[in-house]
Amino acid sequence: MKNYLFAPGPVSVPPEVLLELARPLIHHRTADFSVILDAVRERLKPLFGTRQEVLVLSSSGTGAMEAAVVNLIQRGEEAIFVNGGKFGERWGKMIAAHGAVPREVRVEWGRAVRPEQIEDALRAYPAARAIFMQASETSTCALHPAEAVAAITRGRDVMLVVDGITSVGVIEQKMDEWGVDALLTGSQKALMLPPGLGLIALSERAWKRAEGNRARGYYFDLMRELKAQRDDHTTAYTPAVALIFALNKSLELLHAETLSRVFARQRTMAEATRAAAAALKLELLAPDNPAPGVTGILTPSGLDGSKLVRLMRDRCGVTVQGGQDQMKGKLVRIGHMGYLGPFDMLVAVSALEIGLKQLDYRFELGAGVAAAQSIIARGI
Amino acid sequence: MKNYLFAPGPVSVPPEVLLELARPLIHHRTADFSVILDAVRERLKPLFGTRQEVLVLSSSGTGAMEAAVVNLIQRGEEAIFVNGGKFGERWGKMIAAHGAVPREVRVEWGRAVRPEQIEDALRAYPAARAIFMQASETSTCALHPAEAVAAITRGRDVMLVVDGITSVGVIEQKMDEWGVDALLTGSQKALMLPPGLGLIALSERAWKRAEGNRARGYYFDLMRELKAQRDDHTTAYTPAVALIFALNKSLELLHAETLSRVFARQRTMAEATRAAAAALKLELLAPDNPAPGVTGILTPSGLDGSKLVRLMRDRCGVTVQGGQDQMKGKLVRIGHMGYLGPFDMLVAVSALEIGLKQLDYRFELGAGVAAAQSIIARGI
Repeated sequence: MKNYLFAPGPVSVPPEVLLELARPLIHHRTADFSVILDAVRERLKPLFGTRQEVLVLSSSGTGAMEAAVVNLIQRGEEAIFVNGGKFGERWGKMIAAHGAVPREVRVEWGRAVRPEQIEDALRAYPAARAIFMQASETSTCALHPAEAVAAITRGRDVMLVVDGITSVGVIEQKMDEWGVDALLTGSQKALMLPPGLGLIALSERAWKRAEGNRARGYYFDLMRELKAQRDDHTTAYTPAVALIFALNKSLELLHAETLSRVFARQRTMAEATRAAAAALKLELLAPDNPAPGVTGILTPSGLDGSKLVRLMRDRCGVTVQGGQDQMKGKLVRIGHMGYLGPFDMLVAVSALEIGLKQLDYRFELGAGVAAAQSIIARGI
Repeated sequence: MKNYLFAPGPVSVPPEVLLELARPLIHHRTADFSVILDAVRERLKPLFGTRQEVLVLSSSGTGAMEAAVVNLIQRGEEAIFVNGGKFGERWGKMIAAHGAVPREVRVEWGRAVRPEQIEDALRAYPAARAIFMQASETSTCALHPAEAVAAITRGRDVMLVVDGITSVGVIEQKMDEWGVDALLTGSQKALMLPPGLGLIALSERAWKRAEGNRARGYYFDLMRELKAQRDDHTTAYTPAVALIFALNKSLELLHAETLSRVFARQRTMAEATRAAAAALKLELLAPDNPAPGVTGILTPSGLDGSKLVRLMRDRCGVTVQGGQDQMKGKLVRIGHMGYLGPFDMLVAVSALEIGLKQLDYRFELGAGVAAAQSIIARGI
């Protein structure tokens, strides 16, 4: 059975990129490797919307999150985090795990954090040194207003750290213009790669903060990594060479497509998926602020969402993801990141319809597919 | 020009393993992934010589070193480290970077640490909670006596952490029998993979130590990772899926060859390289305790070792590594790990000879190759 991957990461990888992974290894202390590393770091900048250095880490996206925590806050310091889902929650755990004091801004699952909540938190915790948030919360498929939060933090001595794991490469990021202090992502989402690389950029003032921080750990010490990557054109420790070569290829593909077309394609895929849900009378978990890279569709009440996800996978070969924690069995998350074109969304929606029919949900078969198709047609 | 990789990592990867990297991605929260992860973790045990759990981390070997540090010692605690080269030195920096107190056992480059030095250090620093050492120090190509050190630590409340990055898969490791408390390696050496995976096993008492340690960080928190990998058959965070599939293939190849033949092949390659050096009247940096996975040959005085390495690479397409720090320009390191057979060492030795000739070192061209060949012939 042919399999189709619509998870919000890992995602489908283009064959050209997979073949890059199969190339014989070269050593990482060579001019050949330096050329590739430099190219990758340069090609990432427009995706981050930054003129600052983008660093490549051999870790998952969670490792890049950890790098932000250990470099930008110190033990005992307070840090605000936006908890609107599993990944927001992770910020809190991570801050605590490193001996700092997490201060929570709670957001209902599916909602976006409101800028007033950030203002309130800054008033309540005037000693807070940083705010940690997601650009888009993968567990609830909700988009947070990173730009609006940056408008608050950029005039104050508070760092804004944004997890862009399901945003960078999906929608335009203007890190420098907005005033975001750290933006990070992982390789296995919009960058169309297998997991294994974390990517992070810091603002000028964040670099100053990191420099003044004497306890930056070792593996994720970004000052050390900056020196290695910027000055010596290599990494501080042995890097995931094969993935870096593959990243260079995938960035080449994205830039050849042009970023504006990439973002337009992403928008069409998201809109097609949302239109299908509406046509099927299904609601979104985040109707007012849907995430750009993954759509979270609530399963009709009384219908087992986990069973739906299994049916789609086992009968149709279509992998999507269910909900986590409180949304277990109640949510279907359809990812639209990676090596996908708008037409692929017809496959995802069709499998969703077939699964729903088998669970006796009442609707006209094909209604979702037709709605998705009209969105696609509009753009052609 | 065909290129030959004899670096002490990254190493040549078998084509079957490279092709595994080019396979379409599957999701890491699936039964298919669990089967592979379980297989990998099981197949690693004989290479570690342990019945304990071996965990897979998405990081380089340095990340696995950091995991040992943050899980087994706490801030303010003392830890002894054996500093006989660049990687020994790294233990010290890492211990300090995490707020613990490094206590150095200094070893001359090329020498092995003597068990008496460990006894002395334990007397001098009775509060030390752990000893960190290399099984084999890649920068000096020297083997340290991990077994003898374990004989000292296993009866005391001191953990022994061994970096086996250039030993696991090269020579037999008997972690359980010797009483080593943590043994770790990376994917890019004897395991014949690209870099990007760290692998670590802990002894029973090391797991207890980790459990009692409340500040284990987040990304490298091994208790969290143990629960995920042992109980849930997946990883705590998104893993480097493609590399894990490739590791499964490379372990399949190693076990098909049988470990005893793998170790015999490794021994032959090391002996052939050493015999060649002797025939060329070249000395080793570690003549009494040469490392099994990489041979460090001193360049004749007056001859520029960096130039030799460059000649071998640029004229012959043969990548070896020079010396670091105090050995810069004075050492040639020929790795014999990865996808190599004994006959490949003829290529490395031949390029070494040609480079030496071009730098006017006087010897009979072919003497090294002949010596290597006799060692190979002996085993056939």
